[in-house]
Amino acid sequence: MFKFTVTARDRSARAGIFSTPHGDLITPVFAPVGTQATVKTLTPEHLKDINATLVLSNTYHLYLRPGDELVRGLGGLHTFMQWHRPMLTDSGGFQVFSLAQTRRIDDDGVTFKSHIDGSTHRFTPEKSIAIQENLGADIIMAFDECSDPNDHAYTQLAMERTHRWAERSLKAKTRPDQALFGIVQGGVQADLRAASATFIASLGTPGIAIGGLSVGETKAQMHEVLEVVTPLLPEDKPRYLMGVGTPEDLIQGVARGIDIFDCVLPTRLARHHSAFSPEGRLNLMNAAFARDDRPIDETCDCYTCKTFTRAYIRHLIVAKELLAGTLISIHNLRALISLMEEIRTYIAGGSFEARKNDLLKQWQNNASRIKV
Amino acid sequence: MFKFTVTARDRSARAGIFSTPHGDLITPVFAPVGTQATVKTLTPEHLKDINATLVLSNTYHLYLRPGDELVRGLGGLHTFMQWHRPMLTDSGGFQVFSLAQTRRIDDDGVTFKSHIDGSTHRFTPEKSIAIQENLGADIIMAFDECSDPNDHAYTQLAMERTHRWAERSLKAKTRPDQALFGIVQGGVQADLRAASATFIASLGTPGIAIGGLSVGETKAQMHEVLEVVTPLLPEDKPRYLMGVGTPEDLIQGVARGIDIFDCVLPTRLARHHSAFSPEGRLNLMNAAFARDDRPIDETCDCYTCKTFTRAYIRHLIVAKELLAGTLISIHNLRALISLMEEIRTYIAGGSFEARKNDLLKQWQNNASRIKV
Repeated sequence: MFKFTVTARDRSARAGIFSTPHGDLITPVFAPVGTQATVKTLTPEHLKDINATLVLSNTYHLYLRPGDELVRGLGGLHTFMQWHRPMLTDSGGFQVFSLAQTRRIDDDGVTFKSHIDGSTHRFTPEKSIAIQENLGADIIMAFDECSDPNDHAYTQLAMERTHRWAERSLKAKTRPDQALFGIVQGGVQADLRAASATFIASLGTPGIAIGGLSVGETKAQMHEVLEVVTPLLPEDKPRYLMGVGTPEDLIQGVARGIDIFDCVLPTRLARHHSAFSPEGRLNLMNAAFARDDRPIDETCDCYTCKTFTRAYIRHLIVAKELLAGTLISIHNLRALISLMEEIRTYIAGGSFEARKNDLLKQWQNNASRIKV
Repeated sequence: MFKFTVTARDRSARAGIFSTPHGDLITPVFAPVGTQATVKTLTPEHLKDINATLVLSNTYHLYLRPGDELVRGLGGLHTFMQWHRPMLTDSGGFQVFSLAQTRRIDDDGVTFKSHIDGSTHRFTPEKSIAIQENLGADIIMAFDECSDPNDHAYTQLAMERTHRWAERSLKAKTRPDQALFGIVQGGVQADLRAASATFIASLGTPGIAIGGLSVGETKAQMHEVLEVVTPLLPEDKPRYLMGVGTPEDLIQGVARGIDIFDCVLPTRLARHHSAFSPEGRLNLMNAAFARDDRPIDETCDCYTCKTFTRAYIRHLIVAKELLAGTLISIHNLRALISLMEEIRTYIAGGSFEARKNDLLKQWQNNASRIKV
């Protein structure tokens, strides 16, 4: 279980297979995010139709609602949400630091108030692992602290705490059918990132995540961090770049040796009427689309693009019909999954590096991570 | 085209086939409502999965947004919303009288202000037919006035106006690929209803609708009206009871010779977390369902019931995830469509009258038309 086989390489880019209890993950892979045990507005059938394989869900949210014990009682997350392909849960760390009200951190863990009802809770590495064991995803994450990358002094403290918490997470883990990934932190400082990569790699986890990126740093800074970190990671373990997922980020990440990505961007953009396309990101509420009888993307093979016009989707948006969000979510997720399929083909054929700039050009104007 | 063949009878109940340019309608049939060219939260694939055949859309809404000319320019309603089975549009009359702000009625038509932006518009029989010809549904409706059933004096005036408007609607109609149905009005007064049924039947339209019911009268009053009207209608034309659709209403309507029904109830209930079930209508937000691992209805064959637990759907509701509305809509619509399939089997086998009371008992506590 959890064997990772690199099947092809093209410079730093790799294609591979990561075996899990719920099937093989073909990498590089983009994972849709199902924060609350649902990828917003989509059924599992929609996800299968667009060839989604890995789905991420959030420990912080599910712990608060409906509760991890309840999910365990109903057969675990796969059964609860009826997703029978691989799943991943995060540790809850990132959400505690970004969503929770008034949080107090110490070396043992974090006390925080729920963003839902203000009730007080405490996460420690042991608690995060216990919750993730109740949820039962195939890939689980060590509890980590994601700090402001611009606060250099604090970043080192947070990184060191993340290392101790990774050791405690590993020690707390009991289920053999879950792969625990350690998380590299260290902000945007090359020396800290190198130290963190070396330390986390030494733990021998079946995969390694890179956290603390796409949190306000520049694209150039993110690329530099990846160029420092991935050469220090073992070749035979999958590398997961957390929370990153514009088309440009995926291409640039793969080029720097990343295997797994996740991001809320495709579904969040969809709820704001924004669609990925080779013409650049389209705001489908725009009046210019009122009579446009083309699909969002004529080259896309998704249900939305094979079936509906931009004019119809714009009508749904203007009429405040929720189906608009569903249809654009299908397209936006398929766009990224399809991009990953294309990238895998290029890596297998040894042409990824040669085609990288064309790919980046094709997806330009879809790059912004700016919140919509 | 538009031939109606009665294939089986059981006292007043009939099973039949109504041929349309988009395929045969097997009756009795329940039509989901897609007010704004979409059955709320569902894709056409979802509708095909639950064996929906006829879908209704609203002339008033589509005229205002996106505009009937725009829909025609994009190939008509079937192509616009990608529903390639039979469709029906209403005349806009009911919405003008119930939704529009400040309306002024005269013998020629109605001037009203849009509920969206307050702009002024005018519907006449000729205008309603022109809009419906632009939309292009298989079945279209004569422009009618639906009045308060408790205002007896006015009801007669409105009925007489409806008759003159039916004649004008027929005269205005030009497309041979659309069936125009006249509408019987007359409130809850037996004499008016009889006069209206006789008059509308005399127009020779390929189908006849019964309007002005489910607008505040009692169930007993509705049954009385049907018992007066349907014996006066030709046997070889389908009868459409407009806007009526609790499980009990369908059973009672079929027993009185109705062939076609439509209602927003299944999807509206779904948005309010309420599901049809043989146990009675379930409010799935109820805490009692938090750990309930049964489907909404163990006897239902819909995707929702074959796939998800009540506990999962309750979680989606509590977490404000829109997928809840989609899943309950699928179930509620399938419940009514499935009930109609069952009724058709009974009529074909000559056992509908014998089983009617058992059916009513099975669906009791799902009867209320009260707005949720």
